[in-house]
Amino acid sequence: MLYKNLIKALSLSSLVFAGTLQADEGMWQPHQLQQISGKLKQAGLELDPTQMENLDQFPMNAIISLGGCTASFLSEQGLVVTNHHCAYGSIQYNSSEDKNLLKQGFVAKTKAEELQAAPGSRVYVTESLTNVTEKITGSIASSVQGEAYYNAIEKNEKALVAECETSQDYRCEVYSFHGGLEYFLMKQLALRDVRLVYAPPSSIGKFGGDTDNWMWPRHTGDWAFYRAYVNKDGKPADYSKDNVPFKPKAFLNVNANGVEENDYVMVLGYPGRTNRYRIADEVENVFTWVYPTSKRYREEYIDVIKTTAPAGSEARIKYESTLAGLANYAKNYGSMVESFNKGDMLTRKQQELTELQDWINASADRQKQYGKALKELNQLVAETEKNQQRDLIMSYIGRTNLMSVSKRLYRLANEKTKADSERKQGYQQRDMKRFTQGMKRVNRRYDAEVDKAVLAHFIAEYAQFPASERNPTFDAFFALTDGFDADKLAAKLDEMHSNTALDDEATRLAWMEKSVDDFKASDDPYIQYAVSQYDNDRKQEQQAEALYGQLAQARPAFMAAMIAFKKSKGEPVYADANSSLRITYGNVKGYSPQDGLTATPFTTLEGMLAKYVAGDSEFDLFENIRTAIANKDYGKYYREKVKSVPVNYLSTLDITGGNSGSPTLNGKGEFVGLVFDGVYESIIGDWDYDTKLNRAIHTSVPFMLWTMEHIDGAGNIVDEMTIVE
Amino acid sequence: MLYKNLIKALSLSSLVFAGTLQADEGMWQPHQLQQISGKLKQAGLELDPTQMENLDQFPMNAIISLGGCTASFLSEQGLVVTNHHCAYGSIQYNSSEDKNLLKQGFVAKTKAEELQAAPGSRVYVTESLTNVTEKITGSIASSVQGEAYYNAIEKNEKALVAECETSQDYRCEVYSFHGGLEYFLMKQLALRDVRLVYAPPSSIGKFGGDTDNWMWPRHTGDWAFYRAYVNKDGKPADYSKDNVPFKPKAFLNVNANGVEENDYVMVLGYPGRTNRYRIADEVENVFTWVYPTSKRYREEYIDVIKTTAPAGSEARIKYESTLAGLANYAKNYGSMVESFNKGDMLTRKQQELTELQDWINASADRQKQYGKALKELNQLVAETEKNQQRDLIMSYIGRTNLMSVSKRLYRLANEKTKADSERKQGYQQRDMKRFTQGMKRVNRRYDAEVDKAVLAHFIAEYAQFPASERNPTFDAFFALTDGFDADKLAAKLDEMHSNTALDDEATRLAWMEKSVDDFKASDDPYIQYAVSQYDNDRKQEQQAEALYGQLAQARPAFMAAMIAFKKSKGEPVYADANSSLRITYGNVKGYSPQDGLTATPFTTLEGMLAKYVAGDSEFDLFENIRTAIANKDYGKYYREKVKSVPVNYLSTLDITGGNSGSPTLNGKGEFVGLVFDGVYESIIGDWDYDTKLNRAIHTSVPFMLWTMEHIDGAGNIVDEMTIVE
Repeated sequence: MLYKNLIKALSLSSLVFAGTLQADEGMWQPHQLQQISGKLKQAGLELDPTQMENLDQFPMNAIISLGGCTASFLSEQGLVVTNHHCAYGSIQYNSSEDKNLLKQGFVAKTKAEELQAAPGSRVYVTESLTNVTEKITGSIASSVQGEAYYNAIEKNEKALVAECETSQDYRCEVYSFHGGLEYFLMKQLALRDVRLVYAPPSSIGKFGGDTDNWMWPRHTGDWAFYRAYVNKDGKPADYSKDNVPFKPKAFLNVNANGVEENDYVMVLGYPGRTNRYRIADEVENVFTWVYPTSKRYREEYIDVIKTTAPAGSEARIKYESTLAGLANYAKNYGSMVESFNKGDMLTRKQQELTELQDWINASADRQKQYGKALKELNQLVAETEKNQQRDLIMSYIGRTNLMSVSKRLYRLANEKTKADSERKQGYQQRDMKRFTQGMKRVNRRYDAEVDKAVLAHFIAEYAQFPASERNPTFDAFFALTDGFDADKLAAKLDEMHSNTALDDEATRLAWMEKSVDDFKASDDPYIQYAVSQYDNDRKQEQQAEALYGQLAQARPAFMAAMIAFKKSKGEPVYADANSSLRITYGNVKGYSPQDGLTATPFTTLEGMLAKYVAGDSEFDLFENIRTAIANKDYGKYYREKVKSVPVNYLSTLDITGGNSGSPTLNGKGEFVGLVFDGVYESIIGDWDYDTKLNRAIHTSVPFMLWTMEHIDGAGNIVDEMTIVE
Repeated sequence: MLYKNLIKALSLSSLVFAGTLQADEGMWQPHQLQQISGKLKQAGLELDPTQMENLDQFPMNAIISLGGCTASFLSEQGLVVTNHHCAYGSIQYNSSEDKNLLKQGFVAKTKAEELQAAPGSRVYVTESLTNVTEKITGSIASSVQGEAYYNAIEKNEKALVAECETSQDYRCEVYSFHGGLEYFLMKQLALRDVRLVYAPPSSIGKFGGDTDNWMWPRHTGDWAFYRAYVNKDGKPADYSKDNVPFKPKAFLNVNANGVEENDYVMVLGYPGRTNRYRIADEVENVFTWVYPTSKRYREEYIDVIKTTAPAGSEARIKYESTLAGLANYAKNYGSMVESFNKGDMLTRKQQELTELQDWINASADRQKQYGKALKELNQLVAETEKNQQRDLIMSYIGRTNLMSVSKRLYRLANEKTKADSERKQGYQQRDMKRFTQGMKRVNRRYDAEVDKAVLAHFIAEYAQFPASERNPTFDAFFALTDGFDADKLAAKLDEMHSNTALDDEATRLAWMEKSVDDFKASDDPYIQYAVSQYDNDRKQEQQAEALYGQLAQARPAFMAAMIAFKKSKGEPVYADANSSLRITYGNVKGYSPQDGLTATPFTTLEGMLAKYVAGDSEFDLFENIRTAIANKDYGKYYREKVKSVPVNYLSTLDITGGNSGSPTLNGKGEFVGLVFDGVYESIIGDWDYDTKLNRAIHTSVPFMLWTMEHIDGAGNIVDEMTIVE
């Protein structure tokens, strides 16, 4: 599944070399559509590309963000469709052992039956995207370097955001493109009364589970419906039963025919992160160390959770979502390492850098302008890798609930000693609602035994590292300085979890209001932990920021060279994905995953039934759907071309995490499916797009409508949408 | 791989119901070709079907048996091509740790360099096939029943064989068709000087190993070459350096173009065993008990060998072939159970039996003729399943080397007290050469520690069975009567293996000459074991023979009804495979193994290279082939349609174990490949042919010739063949 990749360490920059643009490659910014309008029309776009640049109009206004996932409006009453895995947290939030909506699915037959989404759920409607490069970097004196440069950018960003966020109804963010060569300010209306309308049972919405995740053939009904509400004045508001459905300026019509092989399709959404322009050294480090190690850590993490929280236990329910996320990326990294070892990306990257350098060397002007860019970047990249062993394992240790909670709370107390505008992003007044929701959400995904077991596992591993890869403050707190003693560590963790009050929601919220001194005086062991690590964390943060400040100058310099080089060859350049709004277009098309095999572009209901395994957690199917398929009760959703109801389909679209839930549109801008995954061979696409192997997986409209009408009894929602044939 | 299925228990009969014949289904006897000549010509056969009935002429005379595998002549100098896995024993026989021909491959650059095949290796050239039904069953009085009927058939068979085998140069055998409705006598010239000419390294000949076994996509160069020699008079003879190559009456021309999608192809060979006409109760028992249990036993057997003989050990080399055979059928059974559970074979069998019964009931004549057939067969089938738990585990216990050796030797001493014509088949004078070779071969596949470990494992399992499923004589010998004691058993096995002399070749051969009394007087523990079990084994054998005697009347009665029923619908009926010569025809064609996936009919060298894993025992490739593929050094074997050299291809042919090594011919009778396997989804084809899923896997001629010329330096062998383009 295309969760947004949250590994911050890998995403704080965005560098080198994509080689020659391949057909269907590219995640284009709205303002670029005119540049490529010829190609778009040739491919099959019937809408005017100029119209698509306008965020206020159809179809762009119908494309929304959920933060990490994409979604779209399907009715004028604020009906939102996204992926089941994007709404998973909200379905889980409304589930209990007695009333397991994950398992049984959920349909609100009336608006009154809709359920509040998980705390913190938002629907973000993008209102504007403004180039603010001049305001961000234009005013910084050339003498400002390193940490000062980083801080200057952050300061300018915060100022722009503060100016933009005129009320809590708006969320603004500055996005950096090409590693800092350009900056855009995105302004979004933030709807905060979000309700769950419909989710199929997991046996449809998550059919195939982890086994089929990232795989083709696929038969997953990965959709769910929300509704966004506003107050009677049409403004964003907290939940109230007096609220009314939000009326979007645009929504998508649903094309019941869906698509056929070779049809033009496009995906509009918020792809999270790609790394198409990284330099060779970064690629080598990531694929030979970072990904293999991260994969192993995730597999170990999963093992520990599964051992500590057996299937069926209350604790396991709390960790299902964590497990899914861990497994998802363990598989993801595994695929990328596999593809990397089979392919020649590194060689190509090296060749491309040589070509770029040759192009620079061939002109005195270019030498003057770009001469130092590559060398400087190489040096900085080597810097960033220096403490990666320590930083990676600390990021897994830091993922556990109370480690993260205690540090965030103490950070907040420290940040609050400053003026709001001076605070770190994430700790400003504007962030407090989200911060509070985060603190409220903890217990739904927390079990002390699991947290302790995970910590015991990773700290034992960390304790084997050499001194240069360890944090003295961490060693001191856990008494690791004089060798590692598993029993002592276990006792320490038991003591911490027995005596902390941070597992209590009210306590956490209370700590949000306390002072630095209150923290220092506390005898809560997790608070003591946070206090003990603070200074060292800040020191490391400063070092990182200094480095990022240098990178924030070196990467744009390098990218400027790259772009100039590409322009010299007449190639338009798209920026790496950065969670901002993008368009990718291509065609419905199969591929060959392996010599001797062809993946055909559609799967069918018969194929779904063939995968059925009674009682299996991944491949079970309820009797109603089995009977309907056996009886070929397909109604008007039967499609002669596939001699069945098409379930999922493949396209050449260039997508990544964050695109989850994005609507797939045809040339007229009609909704023809939801993108929800990529195939196994395309996972490395985040680094290296290959037209032959990159395929996105979509759920088909006939399958969605058939399930809603024939299986899940969600005909009322179908009726609300505008269906075209 | 298509080893001949040797589980005798399942093959002593051959019964019910195939439903409507599917396109490309059928393993036809040569004399049936005229019946289906219209279909053959329509499919693309250019040869005259009448000519193909003649065993003395091209192409049939070029088709030979190796006993368990098929092969064919490719030159007038007795050059034989078969599968690498069929010649595996001979390659292994000539291998040592210093000179590992399995690993390195072998090419005889001259005839003088050719190596003797493993002891007992034979090339059988079929000279005649005669319907002897009248002689076998026509003379038996209707009062003769049960064991007497069985013995009467055996006696008649032996008499025919004795009459036919005019010298040791001939081997004759009587084959039963339709469960005993017809009998044919096959007379074969037995060439006993067989030499290894060429085998590719296992990294080509067994590329993909167990992982790819039964799988598509496939990239295996599963071929090896023998040469048959005769004495200067052209007669079969033991090995002598004065012998000369055998001159066959016919050999096949090799078509260097190979085949293209949809081309007509046919396979001529000796398929071992199918069960297309079994009744519903047999099907249910086999798929719900026999196969699942056998799969488990084989997996346990493999585990025990692997644990006792670690990879790389001398002992492991001895068991590689045993392991391959065990793994092959473990996977085979697994696939069949999987297909059975997914499919509806049992329901169809039941429906078909109902239809047959309705057809019988609809006519008084038919009621009279066939009325009792089905009921009687059902009762007898239930009988055969009575002690299957005991019989199956005893068959695995009996597989170990010295268990089998000692029992066979003592049986021989007993049989030799009778006149030759009265002896059991396998123990007559005509069998002694093979018997001797078998006794000589033992040590190449025997290791005491492995044998003991296997026995300890299965006896421990057997000891848990209820008394009704145990052999009192076995329990007495191993002191299992008063409960099971693993240590005691281990001590007993240690003692047996320390004190037996049967692990010595000369000793085994000496025992072949000894009397029953010599055995009874022996203190060799394995001889004592054989003596102690003998009477009980004979008792059980007699019971089984009585049952088989009844079945030998009931099955033909049932099959007569079936055939009449089918004829009434105008359907030609082929008999189940029984290791006799058959022809199957169809087309080169891909298939869909799963919704959303298509297996394309060809694989390529690039796909082979993509599977390469350095140092892996299954997917390693030598540098010469990797370099040749990387450089696309394909010479004249490049085929534009696949943009490479085609490696393996798929066809709809109806084959089974025993077809291994069979030549694949085009419509002109030219050699266009070797069949060596079926795809995973077609393994159940032994019971139930499905045109949509049944696919045979062939190695292509361009791949074979390319490897011989460009990789293995076997150009001298290519030169010997007649290549047509």
